[in-house]
Parts: sequence; structure tokens; C-alpha cells
Amino acid sequence: MGRRPQIVVIGSSTASETEMEAARAAGAVIAALPATLICGGRGGVMAAASRGAENAGGMVVAILPGSDFSEANAYCDVVLPTGIGYARNLSNILAGDAVVVIGGASGTLSELAYAWQFGKPLFAWKGTGGVADQYAGKRVDRRRNERIVPVEGAEELKVQLKQLLLDF
Amino acid sequence: MGRRPQIVVIGSSTASETEMEAARAAGAVIAALPATLICGGRGGVMAAASRGAENAGGMVVAILPGSDFSEANAYCDVVLPTGIGYARNLSNILAGDAVVVIGGASGTLSELAYAWQFGKPLFAWKGTGGVADQYAGKRVDRRRNERIVPVEGAEELKVQLKQLLLDF
Amino acid sequence: MGRRPQIVVIGSSTASETEMEAARAAGAVIAALPATLICGGRGGVMAAASRGAENAGGMVVAILPGSDFSEANAYCDVVLPTGIGYARNLSNILAGDAVVVIGGASGTLSELAYAWQFGKPLFAWKGTGGVADQYAGKRVDRRRNERIVPVEGAEELKVQLKQLLLDF
Amino acid sequence: MGRRPQIVVIGSSTASETEMEAARAAGAVIAALPATLICGGRGGVMAAASRGAENAGGMVVAILPGSDFSEANAYCDVVLPTGIGYARNLSNILAGDAVVVIGGASGTLSELAYAWQFGKPLFAWKGTGGVADQYAGKRVDRRRNERIVPVEGAEELKVQLKQLLLDF
Repeated sequence: MGRRPQIVVIGSSTASETEMEAARAAGAVIAALPATLICGGRGGVMAAASRGAENAGGMVVAILPGSDFSEANAYCDVVLPTGIGYARNLSNILAGDAVVVIGGASGTLSELAYAWQFGKPLFAWKGTGGVADQYAGKRVDRRRNERIVPVEGAEELKVQLKQLLLDF
Repeated sequence: MGRRPQIVVIGSSTASETEMEAARAAGAVIAALPATLICGGRGGVMAAASRGAENAGGMVVAILPGSDFSEANAYCDVVLPTGIGYARNLSNILAGDAVVVIGGASGTLSELAYAWQFGKPLFAWKGTGGVADQYAGKRVDRRRNERIVPVEGAEELKVQLKQLLLDF
Repeated sequence: MGRRPQIVVIGSSTASETEMEAARAAGAVIAALPATLICGGRGGVMAAASRGAENAGGMVVAILPGSDFSEANAYCDVVLPTGIGYARNLSNILAGDAVVVIGGASGTLSELAYAWQFGKPLFAWKGTGGVADQYAGKRVDRRRNERIVPVEGAEELKVQLKQLLLDF
Repeated sequence: MGRRPQIVVIGSSTASETEMEAARAAGAVIAALPATLICGGRGGVMAAASRGAENAGGMVVAILPGSDFSEANAYCDVVLPTGIGYARNLSNILAGDAVVVIGGASGTLSELAYAWQFGKPLFAWKGTGGVADQYAGKRVDRRRNERIVPVEGAEELKVQLKQLLLDF
């Protein structure tokens, strides 16, 4: 069928209801583009995004830190146990044509930093707290001129991603 | 849709016509199971297996060593540039419910060794030379009692994989 | 001789004179503890810290992203080309009993995030700009109660590291 | 002091007395060159080689799969918990100017395969069983013309390594 766009959603494995709702909506938006959802495959934001995409008929790919399929949440179509621990944060990011940040703590911050370093378009869902709110509208360093794009809801995310993927 | 079985095909990026033919046939068998084809995403055996699966309507996932989507061959549905170099050989293997060896040189040997270490069912396509012929019917060490299962063609591979995946 | 404490210095491969001076001083402090300096082995802050430690008679270990010894700066006693690209940022951090942040951009930010996630004691050299100034005295998330310890010069770094390593 | 040659010893974490004796002797030879011993840092052949080198006053570097210093054997001067699981087999090999194989099972085989792929000079200690005996005097594939050099004891290993390192 040819490669579809791949969008990574990053966020914590333990998440608030606000983060979970945003993640489910993000998953649904990504599935509807249509794009493949890439995520870390665990719980919290990752599971919510997976579920949102799966329920919308999308394709979900889980990139796990450990070596067992069983670590994945229940909503994944392809499961990749990398066996490289949290070095998988790098692989997770590199799999994205764009990265969506929802809430998030230190693990998410390492992924956001990698995404910036490798020039990935970054969107931060405002109001979800953590790393997303901390970096929305900001730059990480001077190597890139643009800012991490703040998005305020599913509709805005959809518009932004569609715009980004016009030339895909 | 829920995770389908995932079958990894390993072999060299530069391959003989015999290896390429076997790889295309293996890809078609895997797609028809139906299972997802996992491979290293480059040329040679990887491209031939990808093409075989893609032409049969299957899903193909490429696990690349580098950090760019462009490294992938033209027949992949999901492309994962891991960014971890040849350490991706480990991730490639861990993504499989089973591993099919076609020909192969030192890179393939590292993957076969990982597959044995992690208890993956291994099938070696006889007559394709290299690592496949060297290890078909053999054990790598004493940790496992079974042998690497020799297969002599597409039909036998299909029967073996169906048998293996009965309980999936 | 038994393992000595290992202190990681993180910062950019292109650095200002302020960052370089701080890095050289940090290297000298670490060597004098005595502790082993761990760093990413490239230029800028990494080379300056390596040189500072080497000139003070210390042991310097370089953890490189690529696969060639030749990537290392000229002041390293042990060179480890990991071959895993920027996933080596994780390995670099895990090698530390403590982590010292000097200036830094997105690469440094991924390392700071990993260090926080894995519970490493973190020291940020104030006045060196970038990530160090941004996070000095702050917490990354709520999983840890303490803050990233700001240090204002070589003398304060020495006192802090000695205090930390009392029970080593 | 400048980088010394780095020699990797590979072998199993559970080893026979024959393998352990060879490993201790190899460690002592490496320390006396003088070269830095690199190993996987765990038990069996790794611990025996580390002990041999340490007792001879050498420098020992452990490259661990996990994220904790405590995984290392007691004879290491520098401990690197890579956090990347058995992908560390690649990093272990890339750290060597040469690789010495003692006995060994599937884990060792993945390392031997990587060593061949990356052009590392390889020495296999005959009579130690496993992978060492299987590959001594053989080639892994056609990419290299030379063979894995069989060595029959500590004296021969010393002569071979000295010869190899003449131009270091």
C-alpha cells in the first residue's frame, strides 16, 4: 500500500484524565488523516492514543523498551520489542514524520529533545501539563528557528497535521 | 485489528538470484498466512522479501539501522529508522514470532545468534547458501534442544509456519 | 585498583569560551577527587573537560556515537565507539555516579532528562548558558523531590562532589 | 596517558574450568602488553579475564547490558552500564582493536559475527570448546580473506597480539 505518514505521540505511562482524553483524541485524529500512529506502546498516554487510533480504524505501532511482546498495550497492530531499554526513545522519535507531545515527564523530555535535535516537526497539546505546557510555543535551542507549535485541541491538531502533510 | 503474527526474514543486502527468489517466495508465504513481515528494510534479501509480501497484499515493516526514512526499500508500509546502527539487528529479531534465514553472511549470523539466544523459532531455507545452509538442521549451543528447522521451499515453509502459529 | 567514582560531564560539541573554561575546570576537579571522567568523547565541552582531566593526571573515558576510534578527541584514555548513534546519550548518563551540566543544547537536554529519570545526582554550572542555566535549581518532574544543584564555579563543584562521594 | 590498545575478550557467563583458565591467562597477557581489557563485565569468562588482568595490574573496562553498576564483576576499573540490553554486544566489540574468543555460546556468536562484520582482528583460543573451537581457523563469510586466527595458549596469544599491535 506504500508508506503512510507516521505520527508519534509521546507522553507518560501514568497520566491524568486530561492527558488521557487528549491522547485518545490525538489517536483518532492521526488515524483519520490517515496516518500510522507510532508510540512507546506502554500504558497511560501511549495506551490512550493507541486506543483512540485503533477505535478509529487506524494502524498502531508500538516501540517497546523491553524484549517481550507482552509489554504492549492492547491496542497495537504491530509490536516491536526493541530490547534496548530507554534508548528506544530515540528510535521512537526517528519513526515520526511529526511528533505530538501530551503532558509528560522526564522520559517525554528526552524524546522531545531528540525530536528537536533531529529536526522533527513538534506539536505540544496545551493544557495537558508537564513537558507539553512547559515547551509549547518555545524553542529548545538556537539550531532551529521555528517554535514547538502549541495546539489547543483535536481540531487544531488535525488542521496542523494536514497542513504539514500536504506534500507527503 | 489486533496484532497479527510477525515473521522476520533475515539475509544479506547483496544477494544471489537464488536468495532473491527464495526471499520473494518467503514474503508471499508470510503475507498469505496472514502475518506481518518484519525485515531490516534494506536491499537484497530484505527488498525481495518485502516485494514478495507487498505484492501478495501483506504488511511490511522495515527496521533500519540509520536515522532516515529514505534508507528503506520501496515495498515497506511502516518504516522505522532506529538510529542505533547495527544494534538494530537485535530489535529486528525481537520483533519476530519466528525467524526465516535465507543465505546470509556475518550480519545475518549475528541475527541468527540473537534469535537462538532469545528462544525464537528458526527456519533456514536450504540451498540458499551462506548462514542458512551452514546452520540448517543444527543447534547453535546446548541451551536449546531443538534444531534450526531446515525448509526446502515455499510450500514447506508455509506448512511449518502454519503449524507454529496454530495457537497464536 | 577497584572502580573509582565516575562523573559524567555533558555539554555541546560546539561551545563558547565560557563553556570551554568551565569544562576544563570541571575536568580538573573530577581528576583531583580522584574520579574517572566520562564524556561523549567529541569536541567542544567534551574535549575541554577531557583535556582538563587529562592535564590533571586523570582517567578519561569517551563514549562515542559512531563506530570508529578516530571520532574521539585527543585526551581520552579509553575510547568506546558504541555504534548506536545518539542512543549513546543514555549509556553516557548511566555510566555516571553524578552528572555535571555545562551550557548545552538539545543533545544535552536529552541527557539531562535521562539523568533525572534514572535518579542520577545532577549539577548545573551556572553562567554557562543553555540547558545548564535553564535547569539550575529546578526540578524536571515530580518524581524526584530534590532540585538540580546549581554550582557557581570549580570550588563549589569540588565541595559538592566530595560531599556526594563521601560514602563511595 | 593517551589511549592504550584495547582488547576485547568474549565468552560465556557460565563457563567450564578450561574456559576460566584460558580467560584468566588471556587477561594477564592483555594487561602485560600493556593493553586495556574490555569485556561484557559479567561472570564466567568475563569475570575470569577481568581477574586475570586486574591481578596483573591491568586496566579493566566492563560494558554491561543493564543499567546498574552492581551487575559488574569485582575486577573492573571502569564500569559502563549501557542500558541497551544485549545490543551492548555490538558496543563491546566496537571497543576492541582486537577480539579474543574463548569457548562461548549464542551470545558469543553474535559478538564474533559483529567482530567479523566490522573488520576486527579475531583470535580463537583452541581447546576451549563452543564458538571458539567451531570458528578457529575459519572464515565467517567471503567479505574478508583472512581466517579467525587459532591460538593454542597464552604464549601464542601474546606473540600474536604483540605482532598485531606493532604499529599501534
